[in-house]
Amino acid sequence: MTHDLTLRVYYEDTDLAGIVYYANYLKFIERGRSEWLRDLDIDQLALKDQGLVFAVRRVEADYLRPAIFDDLLTVRTRLSDHSPARITVDQEVLRGDETLFRARVVIACLAASGRPARLPAGLVACLTG
Amino acid sequence: MTHDLTLRVYYEDTDLAGIVYYANYLKFIERGRSEWLRDLDIDQLALKDQGLVFAVRRVEADYLRPAIFDDLLTVRTRLSDHSPARITVDQEVLRGDETLFRARVVIACLAASGRPARLPAGLVACLTG
Amino acid sequence: MTHDLTLRVYYEDTDLAGIVYYANYLKFIERGRSEWLRDLDIDQLALKDQGLVFAVRRVEADYLRPAIFDDLLTVRTRLSDHSPARITVDQEVLRGDETLFRARVVIACLAASGRPARLPAGLVACLTG
Amino acid sequence: MTHDLTLRVYYEDTDLAGIVYYANYLKFIERGRSEWLRDLDIDQLALKDQGLVFAVRRVEADYLRPAIFDDLLTVRTRLSDHSPARITVDQEVLRGDETLFRARVVIACLAASGRPARLPAGLVACLTG
Repeated sequence: MTHDLTLRVYYEDTDLAGIVYYANYLKFIERGRSEWLRDLDIDQLALKDQGLVFAVRRVEADYLRPAIFDDLLTVRTRLSDHSPARITVDQEVLRGDETLFRARVVIACLAASGRPARLPAGLVACLTG
Repeated sequence: MTHDLTLRVYYEDTDLAGIVYYANYLKFIERGRSEWLRDLDIDQLALKDQGLVFAVRRVEADYLRPAIFDDLLTVRTRLSDHSPARITVDQEVLRGDETLFRARVVIACLAASGRPARLPAGLVACLTG
Repeated sequence: MTHDLTLRVYYEDTDLAGIVYYANYLKFIERGRSEWLRDLDIDQLALKDQGLVFAVRRVEADYLRPAIFDDLLTVRTRLSDHSPARITVDQEVLRGDETLFRARVVIACLAASGRPARLPAGLVACLTG
Repeated sequence: MTHDLTLRVYYEDTDLAGIVYYANYLKFIERGRSEWLRDLDIDQLALKDQGLVFAVRRVEADYLRPAIFDDLLTVRTRLSDHSPARITVDQEVLRGDETLFRARVVIACLAASGRPARLPAGLVACLTG
């Protein structure tokens, strides 16, 4: 199952090369992950109050074609893998059918102490739906 | 007395118009205020631990000339006015002798509750040095 | 006539104070202006190809209440005034009925040379509806 | 040979988790690469005028420990590999001796057309020093 978020490219996202600045794709895919969790009824703030946070551990990102101002983009998110304390998410940024950017993101579940924590069973059930 | 911070314009600061994106000047002047406080031996994190935070209440900003990639800029900061619970700061962004941007920033001192708090006497003494 | 854009607050928008970073409201209202122009069938890229660009000249911004992570915000945009070579726009950021942020933005129309240019008559007609 | 750039963490760099937002490390390392090129007397704007631009093609990034507000960080940059039309750069973000973030960045040299272009011989000589 994949989750799609649509977003628009604004001035703030571009740089003097006239294209989306490379760091901003990480913002786009984080928006995608936030909306994916929301759609699964996973409340990041409630988890934080329980002392659980998600932290990005690794990103592998391929920049295939540039997005430009005014583009309407789709961020596609899919759970790729999970272990007791981390999940791996595959994400793409598309313009129509064309993949512009692709990333694999490894996310750890951490306790307030900063130590790895087990993903709550209910959360895993949600994610693997 | 004025405080000067030097900074460089990078790709991240520009937009497709080839100039510094207008919101990023507010980042530049916030860096200037942070370094100004540091130079006055005012520790923002220590104040936060005491339950005091600074919050921007109003910005009046004039964009005079654009900064571009690779520019070496000066952020000039000067206390303009202060009352028991707020300070007003005048800031400029310059390239050499040329003023590119000018802002007046009103900053409130808040307690953890979010309510206005008196500026500590020692802090006022520092600021008015 | 006012234009409303809805947007979500993501991690990227917040700072360590747990609220939206003050410069990011300028991003939010620029998104609002871009969508307002789009809804009026004004094509910023086509204008740029004709050698006309919009440049922010002045911002007066009041920060009334903080927005936080996950908030669903409305950016409300309204033409306040116009002269041959510039327009003034009043903008608000709201959470429900509550105004969090308010700004008046003065925007100049510039030729490729960087000199002030007259707003095209058709554009003024669009803007004043 | 490595290049070191020192930078400070400001409010703009943090998020509500109280740490540097993950996308902002890509800004930090891009600043590092810009200063590295400057120190090698490579002028990105002059190259652009000659119709050559650098475009990031791939990033592999490991987030090891979080940076926080007020940290003084070092961005360390080192050429790892190069082929006729691309270079690979290894970069680290350190706080003192502690590595917080590590990335391998593959950068292509492109002509104005967007097609891969050979790195100018003089440029390769500079980079491999």
